[in-house]
Amino acid sequence: MNTNVPTQDLAGLLTRIRERKPLVHHITNMVVMNDTANITLAIGALPVMAHAPEEVEEMVGLAGALVLNIGTLTVEQIESMLLAGKRANERGIPIVLDPVGAGATRFRTQNALRLLSELRIAVLRGNAAEIGALVGVEGETRGVESISAGAAPAVIARTASNNFGCTVAITGVHDVIVDGERTAEVANGHPLLGSITGSGCMATSLVGAFLAVESDPWQATIAALVAMGIAGEVAAPMAGGPGTFRSHLLDAVAALSYEQLCEQQRVSFV
Amino acid sequence: MNTNVPTQDLAGLLTRIRERKPLVHHITNMVVMNDTANITLAIGALPVMAHAPEEVEEMVGLAGALVLNIGTLTVEQIESMLLAGKRANERGIPIVLDPVGAGATRFRTQNALRLLSELRIAVLRGNAAEIGALVGVEGETRGVESISAGAAPAVIARTASNNFGCTVAITGVHDVIVDGERTAEVANGHPLLGSITGSGCMATSLVGAFLAVESDPWQATIAALVAMGIAGEVAAPMAGGPGTFRSHLLDAVAALSYEQLCEQQRVSFV
Amino acid sequence: MNTNVPTQDLAGLLTRIRERKPLVHHITNMVVMNDTANITLAIGALPVMAHAPEEVEEMVGLAGALVLNIGTLTVEQIESMLLAGKRANERGIPIVLDPVGAGATRFRTQNALRLLSELRIAVLRGNAAEIGALVGVEGETRGVESISAGAAPAVIARTASNNFGCTVAITGVHDVIVDGERTAEVANGHPLLGSITGSGCMATSLVGAFLAVESDPWQATIAALVAMGIAGEVAAPMAGGPGTFRSHLLDAVAALSYEQLCEQQRVSFV
Repeated sequence: MNTNVPTQDLAGLLTRIRERKPLVHHITNMVVMNDTANITLAIGALPVMAHAPEEVEEMVGLAGALVLNIGTLTVEQIESMLLAGKRANERGIPIVLDPVGAGATRFRTQNALRLLSELRIAVLRGNAAEIGALVGVEGETRGVESISAGAAPAVIARTASNNFGCTVAITGVHDVIVDGERTAEVANGHPLLGSITGSGCMATSLVGAFLAVESDPWQATIAALVAMGIAGEVAAPMAGGPGTFRSHLLDAVAALSYEQLCEQQRVSFV
Repeated sequence: MNTNVPTQDLAGLLTRIRERKPLVHHITNMVVMNDTANITLAIGALPVMAHAPEEVEEMVGLAGALVLNIGTLTVEQIESMLLAGKRANERGIPIVLDPVGAGATRFRTQNALRLLSELRIAVLRGNAAEIGALVGVEGETRGVESISAGAAPAVIARTASNNFGCTVAITGVHDVIVDGERTAEVANGHPLLGSITGSGCMATSLVGAFLAVESDPWQATIAALVAMGIAGEVAAPMAGGPGTFRSHLLDAVAALSYEQLCEQQRVSFV
Repeated sequence: MNTNVPTQDLAGLLTRIRERKPLVHHITNMVVMNDTANITLAIGALPVMAHAPEEVEEMVGLAGALVLNIGTLTVEQIESMLLAGKRANERGIPIVLDPVGAGATRFRTQNALRLLSELRIAVLRGNAAEIGALVGVEGETRGVESISAGAAPAVIARTASNNFGCTVAITGVHDVIVDGERTAEVANGHPLLGSITGSGCMATSLVGAFLAVESDPWQATIAALVAMGIAGEVAAPMAGGPGTFRSHLLDAVAALSYEQLCEQQRVSFV
């Protein structure tokens, strides 16, 4: 199966986001809520954070994509996620799930699995230990940080994609994006991305923005991770450390251009 | 009715905030909580974020103003807002309400209207679509972002001021501040303010700080929006995009001076 | 009692954090959650914010220290703090408590005292008014900001250390760290630290990181406050105000070195 995606097609998705300005509904963690809202705005989409069960169904109906992130999960939040997710599924609105800290506690692992089982998830994005925990591959997580995974990310991602029937992205030094038989790797990125809290959550928000304008979740995810990685590469030389990096990262996302995505992308199709 | 306010009077309110350091109690959204606390500190006031029903009445009793912001509203939070708001009304502590996302969901519209009906609100600040939704003028909201309003902001603001019997500020490219027969426009500001999440919420927090030192809500609001706008103008040339703009904006608010407000204000009285 | 701690011993704790990368479990306020997570990462530890009662016991079991911060306290959060705290006590995992706003409302004062009574707290860190409120010394708090304390910080800290049987740190222009008969003062710091919201909370998070690698809470706290103070001194000349200071502060924490802590520390033992 030829699974190459022309670079122009990926870059064109950025243009589409900026033309359509899709609403991206987040039910997400409180730690990085400001950054995930700001990066969604910076890429050209419109973020809305809303988690009250009284309004999530109505809100998601207005949205182009739904981002579910379990970073500061509570029982109440799961109910809101299920309400919003079911409505999204009825309406064909794609969902990206970020299983933050899966593997660290049973509560996180079980609820991530519950969301994967009760909802039709388009994209599952996490680090190797989180995704590994969801498919029963032992890795080393410390809280919400992945220390090491027990198996190669590509193997874990393929297993997860088969188990859950969705696109799976494992981000790390290189990102692996798998959908069934299709596998892509994104080599863009910079170590400083690992120095700030929530860079994974921010990548997930970008996946949400790209999902809102591209019906193939695998292509949307590749484009989102290329955008995030290039922005990291642009921001890093301007930064004196994690604090200033975070500011320059948002600047870089806002300044991303079609040409830059074409020229600086480092995607390989396996 | 001559409704001109001398520039020195508006600028003098900044001096008063810095002398008195009023406490500004926020019951507000979680997305921009850090920014709203920091901008309140930067203008010279003291922020406190407290939402537990067990303490909001006692806390607001210590405050010079109360900021209510429905950006991440829950049923529990409404109850806390009503408790704090009623105590504030009893004590003559002014309240500013930010109806974030009114019009996007019935939950937000109805609860904003409930707060306006059960509490005596001094200032209502929002974008044209939000305020329009509260007075039944159709606009286009996408989540919490105003895309376009169905009528001119000044008309919407006047209707809202009459309906709710309070000062109404609609912020946008130009800000309109209406209180009954009095109308002012503030032309200060910069497009980058629209590139970060929560610049509206931050403006509302500044309104809270100015309300705490000025008994005429209309004058307090004009001064707050002038301060916000000038800070945006100062920060913009130093910024490389939304991320660095956000940092420079706080710097600019902290550095605002009486002279700067006098010289750079662009207020017109209609 | 000779209570001098060699400078190298304090500085060596930084090296130990970076080698061991301990997990620091936070049940903390929502205003500064992003900054406390980022400063924990910047010092070399791994933050996790988790407050659901269903998972806090399991999560704290993975941690090297537990940070409890009552800045946006709710009744539900107290229950989670007690669950996590009891488990931490059983496992010998040290706890640092930040009684944000104690003295402002009875709810905060009483719950801070409840945590001190039902849990074995290793370190209590606050400003003079907060700690004063917990020992019945009248000070002036305005919301969560300390305006003035009724007694000298060293006296308040000594009383609190005796009352609660733990290390007590009162931060301000000079920081005082008392444990029973041992007293240290840290003169590092910069006024800009007081210009941003949550610098106290961030200092508490650093105490958590140092507690995770040093069994003497008094030494751990001295080292943490030296680190925070030096980072403030490094960041201040690069900042144009509170907004850019906050970014440079994180950069400075991440760049702290053993040599810098040795050379720039200004600790005195009383």
